[in-house]
Amino acid sequence: MTGTGPTDLLGRMYAEWTEEFVAAPQMSLPVMRWVFEDWQRATAEPEDVTYQSCSVGGVPGIMVTPLDADPSQVLVVLHGGGFALGSAASHRKLAGHLARRCGVHAFVADFRRAPEHPFPAQIDDADAVMDGLLDRGIAPQDITPVGDSAGASISIATTLRRGAQGKALPGQVMVVSPWLDMQNSGSTIETNDATDFLIAREGLQGNIDRYLSGGASPTDPLANPLFADFTGFPRLYVTASSAESLYADATRLVDLARKAGVDVTFEPVDGEQHVWTLQAGQHAPADASIEQMAAWYRRGRTAGR
Amino acid sequence: MTGTGPTDLLGRMYAEWTEEFVAAPQMSLPVMRWVFEDWQRATAEPEDVTYQSCSVGGVPGIMVTPLDADPSQVLVVLHGGGFALGSAASHRKLAGHLARRCGVHAFVADFRRAPEHPFPAQIDDADAVMDGLLDRGIAPQDITPVGDSAGASISIATTLRRGAQGKALPGQVMVVSPWLDMQNSGSTIETNDATDFLIAREGLQGNIDRYLSGGASPTDPLANPLFADFTGFPRLYVTASSAESLYADATRLVDLARKAGVDVTFEPVDGEQHVWTLQAGQHAPADASIEQMAAWYRRGRTAGR
Repeated sequence: MTGTGPTDLLGRMYAEWTEEFVAAPQMSLPVMRWVFEDWQRATAEPEDVTYQSCSVGGVPGIMVTPLDADPSQVLVVLHGGGFALGSAASHRKLAGHLARRCGVHAFVADFRRAPEHPFPAQIDDADAVMDGLLDRGIAPQDITPVGDSAGASISIATTLRRGAQGKALPGQVMVVSPWLDMQNSGSTIETNDATDFLIAREGLQGNIDRYLSGGASPTDPLANPLFADFTGFPRLYVTASSAESLYADATRLVDLARKAGVDVTFEPVDGEQHVWTLQAGQHAPADASIEQMAAWYRRGRTAGR
Repeated sequence: MTGTGPTDLLGRMYAEWTEEFVAAPQMSLPVMRWVFEDWQRATAEPEDVTYQSCSVGGVPGIMVTPLDADPSQVLVVLHGGGFALGSAASHRKLAGHLARRCGVHAFVADFRRAPEHPFPAQIDDADAVMDGLLDRGIAPQDITPVGDSAGASISIATTLRRGAQGKALPGQVMVVSPWLDMQNSGSTIETNDATDFLIAREGLQGNIDRYLSGGASPTDPLANPLFADFTGFPRLYVTASSAESLYADATRLVDLARKAGVDVTFEPVDGEQHVWTLQAGQHAPADASIEQMAAWYRRGRTAGR
């Protein structure tokens, strides 16, 4: 990695993590998971939000309830961390900020992680959460998968699979810094190496190997939605930073979905780190992106009624 | 360590941590801090509690606000972690459970940690929080330091120093699994080795070395309250597990304070891990201890009015 050092909180955190990864190349998976829990530190506590440890559809997680929010609308927050790292705890506060701005509830799912549970366990769990919400009487259009990084892949793949199975589709999908390419071939992995303080090809490959350890192909359209047919996919919000290594995943997703006729809104930012929205309450560009996501969410719902 | 394996969540977590410490004896302090953040996992989200990232008296932390609690009474939660590890984030949920049961607000302080900031920086910060609450109009008797493990030492030392300086004293102090002995001489370190899955003499010594790296003596009464004069100390609640390595710190504290005429309530438990209350919402003995603490808190306040 070359170039100038990080200037924001998340960039400094990623640089600290990377320093420890370099110092301990044999770091175990449990320790790596504890490192990634540090994600929570980037986010300020959202105010006027309460929480409950519970399960939806048999999947454990955290129900996030902003005071005075509409309980009939629920975001299904699917966290990043390469399918192997991250948790409901690492993303609780981010979910709180987004739910509060949208004026809805959110469930942050602690889906099963790889490699103990390879693809498609994560999709099975996200699917079970959506079914669980439908069972509780939430209408399909009031359910919104929201995923960052690997959680974007889960959000999209779960929606694609529901479509293929003829199950009720969520009303809309929102993704931030999506990671989709299980061939590890994105052009910005190299070109943005100097400005992305977390993501590098080797780390991605480790997560790919864990996710596909059950034998799935890196071009299976549910494991790698860049190979999927998006015909009939719900309206889709995509954001990513032009400075991040995975930017090419976002642009390829946008092109693919638009060619299939999907109503896609793409609002990229410049100069931010991977999943910069985790800095909600502590970094103005994070709050601005969350407000844009919430505005898009509210606009679509007004239009659809 | 010998004996049977852990049977509760926290014991299993401590055994997992210990396995990683043994596997990586050169583990860096940043990584060790990330491991201890895992403490948060032991605790279920308390319901009907909101949070705010803020500062009190210039010290950052999390204000914990149960819905409908009395804002004129505030617990000052001083987290454990050997003065070097742990954070407001690791103890947020525990603070929420306790504040909710007491019917009050709580501030979980992110005091400066050793060795970057050795003794008495932690006491300075806890003292600043108490002054900050007084400045906000909270009455001294409505302020309650609550500390677990090393946080118990900070709670007690800060109160002792305020007394020596003629400053307003908190109305009461509550401690769980107190760690006080900077001579590392407690008899239960050996005798409870088989039943305590976290604490061992070497780890304690590492934290002692970090805490006293500024040159303070291990028998300084503010660094080691087992050498302090407790005359005039507020009413004190102590709990600890007879199965933990630091049990002798609790019993020595109780004897010392009682001999000085302090109103001490000691309600030990059997068979639990160090700071078992962190399992609030997930382990009945944790909830029972928190209810006992809250009952003691409420009783004293009723009696004092």
